[in-house]
Amino acid sequence: MTQKVWGGRFRKETDTLTNRFNASISFDSRLYAQDIEGSMAHCRMLAKQGIISVEDESAILEALAKILRELDRGEIEFNDDYEDIHSLVEKTLIERVGALGEKLHTGRSRNDQVALDVRMYVRDVIRRVVELIKKTQVAIVDLAEKNIDLIMPGYTHLQRAQPVLVAHHMLAYYEMLKRDLQRFEEALKRTNVLPLGSAALAGSTFNLDRVMVAETLGFDGITANSMDAVSDRDFILDFLYASSVLMMHLSRLCEELVIWSSQEFAFITISDSFCTGSSIMPQKKNPDLPELIRGKTGRVYGHLMSLLTTMKGLPLAYNKDMQEDKEALFDAADTVEICLEVISRLLPEITFNEENLRAATEKGFMAATDLADYLVRKGITFREAHEIVGKMVLFAIDQKKELHNLSLEEMRRFAKKIDKDVEPWLDPFKTVNRRNVLGGTGPEMVKQCLKKAREELAS
Amino acid sequence: MTQKVWGGRFRKETDTLTNRFNASISFDSRLYAQDIEGSMAHCRMLAKQGIISVEDESAILEALAKILRELDRGEIEFNDDYEDIHSLVEKTLIERVGALGEKLHTGRSRNDQVALDVRMYVRDVIRRVVELIKKTQVAIVDLAEKNIDLIMPGYTHLQRAQPVLVAHHMLAYYEMLKRDLQRFEEALKRTNVLPLGSAALAGSTFNLDRVMVAETLGFDGITANSMDAVSDRDFILDFLYASSVLMMHLSRLCEELVIWSSQEFAFITISDSFCTGSSIMPQKKNPDLPELIRGKTGRVYGHLMSLLTTMKGLPLAYNKDMQEDKEALFDAADTVEICLEVISRLLPEITFNEENLRAATEKGFMAATDLADYLVRKGITFREAHEIVGKMVLFAIDQKKELHNLSLEEMRRFAKKIDKDVEPWLDPFKTVNRRNVLGGTGPEMVKQCLKKAREELAS
Amino acid sequence: MTQKVWGGRFRKETDTLTNRFNASISFDSRLYAQDIEGSMAHCRMLAKQGIISVEDESAILEALAKILRELDRGEIEFNDDYEDIHSLVEKTLIERVGALGEKLHTGRSRNDQVALDVRMYVRDVIRRVVELIKKTQVAIVDLAEKNIDLIMPGYTHLQRAQPVLVAHHMLAYYEMLKRDLQRFEEALKRTNVLPLGSAALAGSTFNLDRVMVAETLGFDGITANSMDAVSDRDFILDFLYASSVLMMHLSRLCEELVIWSSQEFAFITISDSFCTGSSIMPQKKNPDLPELIRGKTGRVYGHLMSLLTTMKGLPLAYNKDMQEDKEALFDAADTVEICLEVISRLLPEITFNEENLRAATEKGFMAATDLADYLVRKGITFREAHEIVGKMVLFAIDQKKELHNLSLEEMRRFAKKIDKDVEPWLDPFKTVNRRNVLGGTGPEMVKQCLKKAREELAS
Amino acid sequence: MTQKVWGGRFRKETDTLTNRFNASISFDSRLYAQDIEGSMAHCRMLAKQGIISVEDESAILEALAKILRELDRGEIEFNDDYEDIHSLVEKTLIERVGALGEKLHTGRSRNDQVALDVRMYVRDVIRRVVELIKKTQVAIVDLAEKNIDLIMPGYTHLQRAQPVLVAHHMLAYYEMLKRDLQRFEEALKRTNVLPLGSAALAGSTFNLDRVMVAETLGFDGITANSMDAVSDRDFILDFLYASSVLMMHLSRLCEELVIWSSQEFAFITISDSFCTGSSIMPQKKNPDLPELIRGKTGRVYGHLMSLLTTMKGLPLAYNKDMQEDKEALFDAADTVEICLEVISRLLPEITFNEENLRAATEKGFMAATDLADYLVRKGITFREAHEIVGKMVLFAIDQKKELHNLSLEEMRRFAKKIDKDVEPWLDPFKTVNRRNVLGGTGPEMVKQCLKKAREELAS
Repeated sequence: MTQKVWGGRFRKETDTLTNRFNASISFDSRLYAQDIEGSMAHCRMLAKQGIISVEDESAILEALAKILRELDRGEIEFNDDYEDIHSLVEKTLIERVGALGEKLHTGRSRNDQVALDVRMYVRDVIRRVVELIKKTQVAIVDLAEKNIDLIMPGYTHLQRAQPVLVAHHMLAYYEMLKRDLQRFEEALKRTNVLPLGSAALAGSTFNLDRVMVAETLGFDGITANSMDAVSDRDFILDFLYASSVLMMHLSRLCEELVIWSSQEFAFITISDSFCTGSSIMPQKKNPDLPELIRGKTGRVYGHLMSLLTTMKGLPLAYNKDMQEDKEALFDAADTVEICLEVISRLLPEITFNEENLRAATEKGFMAATDLADYLVRKGITFREAHEIVGKMVLFAIDQKKELHNLSLEEMRRFAKKIDKDVEPWLDPFKTVNRRNVLGGTGPEMVKQCLKKAREELAS
Repeated sequence: MTQKVWGGRFRKETDTLTNRFNASISFDSRLYAQDIEGSMAHCRMLAKQGIISVEDESAILEALAKILRELDRGEIEFNDDYEDIHSLVEKTLIERVGALGEKLHTGRSRNDQVALDVRMYVRDVIRRVVELIKKTQVAIVDLAEKNIDLIMPGYTHLQRAQPVLVAHHMLAYYEMLKRDLQRFEEALKRTNVLPLGSAALAGSTFNLDRVMVAETLGFDGITANSMDAVSDRDFILDFLYASSVLMMHLSRLCEELVIWSSQEFAFITISDSFCTGSSIMPQKKNPDLPELIRGKTGRVYGHLMSLLTTMKGLPLAYNKDMQEDKEALFDAADTVEICLEVISRLLPEITFNEENLRAATEKGFMAATDLADYLVRKGITFREAHEIVGKMVLFAIDQKKELHNLSLEEMRRFAKKIDKDVEPWLDPFKTVNRRNVLGGTGPEMVKQCLKKAREELAS
Repeated sequence: MTQKVWGGRFRKETDTLTNRFNASISFDSRLYAQDIEGSMAHCRMLAKQGIISVEDESAILEALAKILRELDRGEIEFNDDYEDIHSLVEKTLIERVGALGEKLHTGRSRNDQVALDVRMYVRDVIRRVVELIKKTQVAIVDLAEKNIDLIMPGYTHLQRAQPVLVAHHMLAYYEMLKRDLQRFEEALKRTNVLPLGSAALAGSTFNLDRVMVAETLGFDGITANSMDAVSDRDFILDFLYASSVLMMHLSRLCEELVIWSSQEFAFITISDSFCTGSSIMPQKKNPDLPELIRGKTGRVYGHLMSLLTTMKGLPLAYNKDMQEDKEALFDAADTVEICLEVISRLLPEITFNEENLRAATEKGFMAATDLADYLVRKGITFREAHEIVGKMVLFAIDQKKELHNLSLEEMRRFAKKIDKDVEPWLDPFKTVNRRNVLGGTGPEMVKQCLKKAREELAS
Repeated sequence: MTQKVWGGRFRKETDTLTNRFNASISFDSRLYAQDIEGSMAHCRMLAKQGIISVEDESAILEALAKILRELDRGEIEFNDDYEDIHSLVEKTLIERVGALGEKLHTGRSRNDQVALDVRMYVRDVIRRVVELIKKTQVAIVDLAEKNIDLIMPGYTHLQRAQPVLVAHHMLAYYEMLKRDLQRFEEALKRTNVLPLGSAALAGSTFNLDRVMVAETLGFDGITANSMDAVSDRDFILDFLYASSVLMMHLSRLCEELVIWSSQEFAFITISDSFCTGSSIMPQKKNPDLPELIRGKTGRVYGHLMSLLTTMKGLPLAYNKDMQEDKEALFDAADTVEICLEVISRLLPEITFNEENLRAATEKGFMAATDLADYLVRKGITFREAHEIVGKMVLFAIDQKKELHNLSLEEMRRFAKKIDKDVEPWLDPFKTVNRRNVLGGTGPEMVKQCLKKAREELAS
């Protein structure tokens, strides 16, 4: 590596190990499009401000556009001769247009340039992630609607608790993803601010028009303090955090898909095309995709922790440690995008096994709360009603019966106030209909939520 | 511990170890005020909806108000006989008002109750943290204004880079805290949503008016899905994340305070009242407070990682694992509050040592970029100018001189275009004035930022 | 707080906020016994070396012993007037014996004193944890032996894979805990090294006999470098890491206990005394204890991450940040101890539901691998055999049969070489017996492992 | 991707997205040599046990050896047509030798195969890391010896505390690395155990000789429980943890190198060949390498946290989540190796600036502790002596003097017992000689440590 942008003050050649360790070209090459787009905007501004001539501007812009096209087509190698993508672009430009290319770096530093490139990259990623989250939400709503009449056991502590609509259960994930959307949009707000013009750390001596550059590049504003601008990586942290919570949500959904796919639950069947087998056990069909998504949660958490650690205790302004922001970001972005792609494609491949859901809902005394609520309506306090029903459950367990198999007489041993009208309160399938409180699993409520979700997704 | 709210269905006594391990009263006692306030709103709503009588409502409200006062005054012990704060309040109520107290739990579960309490707690904490951040911002702006004419070396890689105004340097932290404010406010938005009415996981069979409860308790809205509502801890994660980034920012400031306090830098002196000494070395005066804040960064990161891990892969809805959310939250809240209190009190106790700042600014060739910019103005390309100045610096090092000590003749050996007008471009103290680009360290720019900051803080 | 051990060089009173923030007495009070034991050893050594007189030694030792007894009995308050436990002990000593107490700190600093105290504390904790791990291993082996004839489905991807002995499954956890034991013992090795004598950071000017102190206090050796000794927290990290992996192992076991407790699996029943109920759902019996242990995994991971972060990038030697080591350590120690106590008490309370295990083992084509192995014995390559059996499984699924329900004729459609002798290879209960490879689930192998485990636990 | 090793039981083609998401070939290709070496040992054993013929063995071994050579030379592409490296090798083998290649997988699963490969990989990495740590230790000892007479300020809280030998300071890092060595060696012990023979999870029905395979492959033993063996990733965690602590140590050293390189400290000069410059500031020479190492600490911590998270709560035995172990491992291994290479090459490029060290040592009252120790020798208690010297320091500060500039008369105002013999106790350069306690900075002690280090490194 010989093509440095800073050789003058150095007496000795850079050691090859230094070059290898220091260089970021192997991963920041990913930013080439952003780098060139940013350089073009900078160039235009330099010309407009009279810092370079209009002729120089044209020549530089034309050359940069050509370099971009060639990079797009893979015609320029991401050569290890360059420290980073900024050097590659600048040096290539100078090769093409000669000395006038040496003017491009006027009034800027790699410190603000890389901040610019990464912000543009994160902005693009967030926009894609937002679309993928919406795609996943659509898949959830579709699945919910497709199974709108299906009832399943709702769980707490993985113990059967109260019956719920499958659609209600799925819509819980819709809500989580809605908050994820918000977090990404908030991250975008803080990302989409132009740092260029901060130069090394103190601003430039040239009369730069930062507002013009911001407008050219579609930024919503400009950074207010140059020292902050070149050493701020909050926007990447915001992205990694939003990604971590998103992955946590997906890990919960995937845990459920794995459990529901077990032979014991057998609540769902995942299409063969979205499962894989075993190299030794011929009968195996494994839910690899949800498992992998669940596993990748750790990966994204790790990247968040990585950058938080790296940034801790760094004095102002730029420190080389910050170069470590990129690989974590890139890998997290790739991970989140593919996981969303996979889950949004996987959900339509899931079939709920109605028979098994029905069998599971019938057992587990899941109408117990309703029976207590019935007793409250008969004038018993809730706490007493709870105690009574608890004892009835115990009795039923001993009798190997469900609550709805107990005779009226048996029940009245526990509470005289129980009467024939208790019957509907004992049927686990009817309990759902009674939960028409806002946010509850009552069919009317769930249908309203589905409608609202469709509207939100349409807007 | 005997006072369970769920004994009926159990045949055997709970083991004492189970009680000890399971109970949360030792830490969730902190939520007593929120718990009672929430119960009072629930009670009012039950009455309004005709689920309990107005007489019962009055009796319950009066008793709860009394219990609250007694807890405030420490007259009720947080007795280990109770599993949690909810049980303590309910059981105490029943002791006081008898059976009618058993009605209070109608239509709710501890699952939605604890979600309510914690949301109210986080809401309170965020509001306090927001005030403390602003207080810290005021301290920063005060310090910046007090030292408005002071110039210091700006650093990258902890190497002298370009001179900056002390005020400009301090305002970088103002900007960081501004983003922190945003994050806490965004967290608040997602926190301030009422979960009550979700009951165990599926909603209630009673005709609850959730909107009324939300209004009574000052919530901005109600949760849309009961299963999500009882198993959502995003709002705590949002708080822990906002806290983590805030601590990261403080750790950077504190690192600088520690470095600046060293005898080698000696840029600042911290008042004796905010330092401590050594048990063995009589001469020591240590910057313990910034060190401790820097150290506590790990603590808050740890809590974030803790809850992210705990939530990973949990199926819906409530699982007992979630009980682990509270201690991380409480400790992070305490940590962030005291750290902000300390830093906002510490900043006014800092004196910048003008003489040392001046001496440091004079050395380190910090006008080199300006000299290159000067050459650009003389028609040399920036990249060539950079190379020329690099070589001049090398020459100056050999001569043990600074750039402004070189003679015109010496300089012209490197670039013929250098002329007498170069002089102001060599003076490190004058370089600041030339950086009047938006966001730069130019005095006009910095004064505008200070003015804007004052306005923001006033609003 | 007025009782400083370092007032001389300070001109102004310490601010009360400084005192509050800086003080560690609220948590390092836990180290009082270690602190006094260490001081007594230091005192003895000072006398032996002639640095203090034998009379002074006697007076100091007597007074320290008395202070220890009083602290044990709670007769001395951990008063906020003191910065830390070291100051409390020293100041109390001086109150009791006057000026001669002022000699105790000769040749030491709080920097090496706290390192000593914490090492003694960690040493004690590790020894307790080692016993608790062994207790848990005994519980595992007991449970395995008690169910020695029981067969259950073995899972990969939570899909039924191959039948295994319940005992074999449980012994997997025995192995994990065995590695945990090693990690704690390795941590102990690095913990049990005396740092005292390092003084502030450079060693002492007094002729200290560190070897004598090490022997008095039961250390295996002394630290080799004073600067390292006062700033080394590796031994705490080692403890936190060993704890994290232990918790990870317990989280896996607990995940299984939770899943096995579900109504769908119903493989185990946990005794009522080790479960709890719901405040709203009268029928609920929840596996709270395994859930809580699983949840506390995050807590211990968080503490590990916390200290790793805190230690990152600290220059030598002691920095105040290191004071943050203690609370993470204490909480992790408490967590690990109680979790082991709980799990070792919980395991004997588990009953395997034989009938359900049997029913589950019968289904899921779990003899498929054996059938392929049978074909290999008939001269078919394994890869072809795998393919053949895969197709037979598909056929069986369509026929709603298990492999052992297929007729010989049906089977021979897939492979002519299948003959009557195939029968034992189709029975899922017999597959276990064929896995008598070392480490396999074959009953002979498992019994050998049990025997070896008993021997290891006895030694 | 069409070349599955498990097609039989599947009715539908695997979706291309499933293939892309599920495949590990893009990263586990790194394991090709281990995979083939493992397969060859398995093959030999199958033959020895009579499970395959000797002719088959020869043919398979020859083909595998050829495949290995071709992979070494890059003649076989890591084609995306294969799920993983195991499939690539097996399918390539079958292409080459036909049906007999289909026998190789007899008695094993990818579950135990990947466990084998990764253990072999980690084993290799640890051995390289151990050598690199030793190389770094040599560089430390060399640097210490080269500067054996140099004295510098020792710091606590980054405040000058007591003078130390530069060699003593450097040897603190020798000690840290010694513990790191231990941790890696302990990790190796747990890594170097053969899992093969565990098959899918329950062991094999074939009469495998696991001990023979272990010996062939150089393992120290075999795993004791097949279910543990296929789902154990402790050895990777052990590696990641040892790497994390190592990086933490390096981050501390690098923080010091960065601080010492600042113009304010100016304690060291790093050779030009190991520094880089700025694209905008011509005078800059930055300590990029230590900064990068410090920054990469976060990266390795992140990988540790990643795998800890991924493993949390996974039921037995293998789950697909575990595939996520590899990229974290590979990246951590690369990072640790390059960081050690860099630091071991960088240390010899450091020159200590004697003049600046001397100037710094003269100031800061660093003999204060010795002066207190002197007073103790005159019969004053240490605590009183500390107070007296504290006041003398305050007086000296006011007089703008150092302690050794005070007149005897001035000193005697504070303590009558001070006499002419105090002089050597006031000289900061002489304080070092008095610290000849074991582990202290006294030159004799340090020389002993250097000698011991040389012996350790030679063995």
